[in-house]
Amino acid sequence: MTEKPYKLASRDYHPESTVISLPALPGHDPVLIGGKEVVLVAGPCSVEPREIMRQIARTLKTHGVGLMRAGAFKPRTSPYSFQGLGVEGVRILREIRDAFGLRFVTEVMDTRDVELVAETADIIQIGARNAQNYSLLKAVGRTRTPVLLKRGIAGTIEELLMSAEYIMSQGNEQVILCERGIRTYERATRNTLDLNAVPLLKQWTHLPVAVDPSHGTGSRDLVIPMAGAAVAAGADMLLVEIHPSPSTAISDGAQTLDHDQFADMILRTAKIAEAVGRSLRSS
Amino acid sequence: MTEKPYKLASRDYHPESTVISLPALPGHDPVLIGGKEVVLVAGPCSVEPREIMRQIARTLKTHGVGLMRAGAFKPRTSPYSFQGLGVEGVRILREIRDAFGLRFVTEVMDTRDVELVAETADIIQIGARNAQNYSLLKAVGRTRTPVLLKRGIAGTIEELLMSAEYIMSQGNEQVILCERGIRTYERATRNTLDLNAVPLLKQWTHLPVAVDPSHGTGSRDLVIPMAGAAVAAGADMLLVEIHPSPSTAISDGAQTLDHDQFADMILRTAKIAEAVGRSLRSS
Amino acid sequence: MTEKPYKLASRDYHPESTVISLPALPGHDPVLIGGKEVVLVAGPCSVEPREIMRQIARTLKTHGVGLMRAGAFKPRTSPYSFQGLGVEGVRILREIRDAFGLRFVTEVMDTRDVELVAETADIIQIGARNAQNYSLLKAVGRTRTPVLLKRGIAGTIEELLMSAEYIMSQGNEQVILCERGIRTYERATRNTLDLNAVPLLKQWTHLPVAVDPSHGTGSRDLVIPMAGAAVAAGADMLLVEIHPSPSTAISDGAQTLDHDQFADMILRTAKIAEAVGRSLRSS
Amino acid sequence: MTEKPYKLASRDYHPESTVISLPALPGHDPVLIGGKEVVLVAGPCSVEPREIMRQIARTLKTHGVGLMRAGAFKPRTSPYSFQGLGVEGVRILREIRDAFGLRFVTEVMDTRDVELVAETADIIQIGARNAQNYSLLKAVGRTRTPVLLKRGIAGTIEELLMSAEYIMSQGNEQVILCERGIRTYERATRNTLDLNAVPLLKQWTHLPVAVDPSHGTGSRDLVIPMAGAAVAAGADMLLVEIHPSPSTAISDGAQTLDHDQFADMILRTAKIAEAVGRSLRSS
Repeated sequence: MTEKPYKLASRDYHPESTVISLPALPGHDPVLIGGKEVVLVAGPCSVEPREIMRQIARTLKTHGVGLMRAGAFKPRTSPYSFQGLGVEGVRILREIRDAFGLRFVTEVMDTRDVELVAETADIIQIGARNAQNYSLLKAVGRTRTPVLLKRGIAGTIEELLMSAEYIMSQGNEQVILCERGIRTYERATRNTLDLNAVPLLKQWTHLPVAVDPSHGTGSRDLVIPMAGAAVAAGADMLLVEIHPSPSTAISDGAQTLDHDQFADMILRTAKIAEAVGRSLRSS
Repeated sequence: MTEKPYKLASRDYHPESTVISLPALPGHDPVLIGGKEVVLVAGPCSVEPREIMRQIARTLKTHGVGLMRAGAFKPRTSPYSFQGLGVEGVRILREIRDAFGLRFVTEVMDTRDVELVAETADIIQIGARNAQNYSLLKAVGRTRTPVLLKRGIAGTIEELLMSAEYIMSQGNEQVILCERGIRTYERATRNTLDLNAVPLLKQWTHLPVAVDPSHGTGSRDLVIPMAGAAVAAGADMLLVEIHPSPSTAISDGAQTLDHDQFADMILRTAKIAEAVGRSLRSS
Repeated sequence: MTEKPYKLASRDYHPESTVISLPALPGHDPVLIGGKEVVLVAGPCSVEPREIMRQIARTLKTHGVGLMRAGAFKPRTSPYSFQGLGVEGVRILREIRDAFGLRFVTEVMDTRDVELVAETADIIQIGARNAQNYSLLKAVGRTRTPVLLKRGIAGTIEELLMSAEYIMSQGNEQVILCERGIRTYERATRNTLDLNAVPLLKQWTHLPVAVDPSHGTGSRDLVIPMAGAAVAAGADMLLVEIHPSPSTAISDGAQTLDHDQFADMILRTAKIAEAVGRSLRSS
Repeated sequence: MTEKPYKLASRDYHPESTVISLPALPGHDPVLIGGKEVVLVAGPCSVEPREIMRQIARTLKTHGVGLMRAGAFKPRTSPYSFQGLGVEGVRILREIRDAFGLRFVTEVMDTRDVELVAETADIIQIGARNAQNYSLLKAVGRTRTPVLLKRGIAGTIEELLMSAEYIMSQGNEQVILCERGIRTYERATRNTLDLNAVPLLKQWTHLPVAVDPSHGTGSRDLVIPMAGAAVAAGADMLLVEIHPSPSTAISDGAQTLDHDQFADMILRTAKIAEAVGRSLRSS
């Protein structure tokens, strides 16, 4: 594969690794994604009620984690499932952000919501189901907010880069690629986490690479070892689902860590990060 | 699987098969989809220049085929590939429709284009990449134009029904489900046409089932036998790509039949339709 | 793919279609596989007790079906599942053959059983799990008994041809290739029957092509439409599981037709065979 | 999945982790597989000529690696490809073993070769293509030589355990399970290394778990990061292909490390092993 079909995303075009900088909040350092530190993002699947969001925010602050994930708009297979809190969810995210000095990763699903989400989110997420929703990719490409782009449910590594190219071709070059497990015949896990993609992406592209071991496994017990494996493979960022009481979480409880497991995960993952000459951002 | 997660799409909920009726054009019978006749839809992948569109339209009329397919908005893996003629393409479709009395199936990719496409198309297509773009599904669900919903690139049969449910839950119950090949490990064909889905869908749902042997194989030489197989399996509708000179088609030439092959396909497929007690609509 | 990695199996090497002839039994015509007739093979998954085998044999004779399938050696995922009747099963097959003038397709799993099976079987089956058991392929290649070679559980079409090449390279060119469904992410059916493989194989190779809609679907209700689809796609042979009382069958009951359904299948499939200019062998 | 279909392989049946001990060679400690140390196995894909085998053996000794891999019998997709040196290869393995005090992992493909291979190999390998060759599994189950069982090309984790059960049910409980990449739609890598399988297997079974990042990626550049990821995920053993001059290796050159890369791999992987509280056996 000598000639790549993507350009702006290619390391041939841009040999140095891209480091995405989230501006410093008062009293904090800026967050650099794609640099020496492995950046941790944690939070509930869906935006939860205020009190639970505050509890999670406090846990993040305790561990020095500066980025929270939580979905206000939720893509659900069934139209009868809870679809997220929507605009009210965005309002909750803003309150938490202001109260705790946290930054947010949150998903957008509709071109008509891009402006609203871009105002609130520090990083806009494009979910797996929309990985080839080209109208949406172009719309977030016209913002100047960094984008976390998830690999499609059965997307190839090349398609992931082509989707990044859609965003970048509109002027927004701040794209983080996220491996979140692919659909295979194996039924013992929710998805098959394709960690091969991590070192391959680091070769092919200059963009930072994130891994989501929560969706990539679907099972709480596998999240910690696979978070470590992701860092060993070269991931620049980890996305994990946490909740003070996973069994009562609005969605994805089975793959969600509780706060003790999260503390354990940080300890273990930090050691792996050091073993590969990096550190886990937690201050 | 006793309890199905879909309702409006379920045959339990609606035991009789749905027959979608496209209103009669002056001098023509209405087209009934899901009835005794197997309905044929043919045309180029992308809207082609006017003269070629007219040539194809004449061929369709010669064979009594009343439905044409052609994409004005084209989802392409690369942002640098031709993205379709867009609004100008829609204008061409209207001209051909008025000049030849043909009906159109054409794709919509963006919620903001739904109104425009719904005014022009007799059937709105949701492509495989947007099979779980729920905002788009809801938007076409709010129109009253029949929808051809393609199975996702690696979508399950149940997910296809859940996506239909998104459309139907908004009030539009005129949904045609389309098997167009799924992504597997097999590389000898573009996709693996999952004809098992046809009789299974006919059991699980009352909605009409279409098959696209062009995308389902990716290879002109396989289209005719697989069109026959689709009808034998119980398909209510066939979508095929044709072009007077496939090697010069704007897109998908390798899987496109020329007009002689198309004539041959009609002959052969009509015999299979009769063998299963149906007829191929061609008058 | 101009240069194919297989030779003896290639249509380039051997442009005319191979017709495998099973010698005539007294009072019968020879069976020709790969010719104008579509050949039907039916029977239970495993060799059943004598009385049931006789009942099935009588049904086959009633319908003029001359080939019976039944496994004496059964590859089972669990070592604790019934492994087939083994040598006793082979003995039963011989008795039925002699009593009814039927021919047999039966599986061999071990190089040490090849001689025994080759003496009894009219066609030796290599199952999906052994599709790349090269020692076994070579061993059956050294016999002069026709071989029914099933595609691997996740085998490519090219690998199927390479496995045929292993057999042929040992001097046995009487190989029938069998599509039996492949393993994909789809869970609604036991396997995904890849009928694209049928016309593709007919192009690439001169060998006859069989389809097994029982394993290819895993569900009785799908067998009849998919048997028809297989013939429409160009299959030369069909393998179906039947049993007088499927719910009591030793194995694979869920995908097994009862004798009435089998009669219905013959009627329907015969019409499709005629529609493609062939006939279903049933005399 | 409360009731598991496997018994002897289950952690419910045998709660303590199995540690397989290879008897001490004179002047060496015994090798313990499944204990605190991560065990490294390295060598060429196929048995190479004597001089190259000696060169590799010297490299292994330099790094304190006590186990060599090399195939005398090679399963090759094409009957026209090199099939391994066979019995002569086994003879070379014995010479190297005696000269260098190395232990060997080598593959057996035919029940008739099991005795010969069991006499020479310290660990008998069952390759991916034979993962459900039950006759062969039973045959190695009747030896008392430890078995390295590779996951099938598209085998499920449960099938891997069922195949182990076949071996164990014959009395040989010394089975090492090996993740070697599975077949998926992704074409950018030879296979998709399913590291989720590692922590899941460690939960479900007491047997040691190996990972083969060479076959699991198919690409030299990905072997080192994925070896580290495998250890982070909990692997007890690593199998890697090395050769003094990979481009001239008899087979699998593209995924083979040269001796400098191997030294680098050891350094890096040892750090990960320490980060998870283990050590890489290299003394």
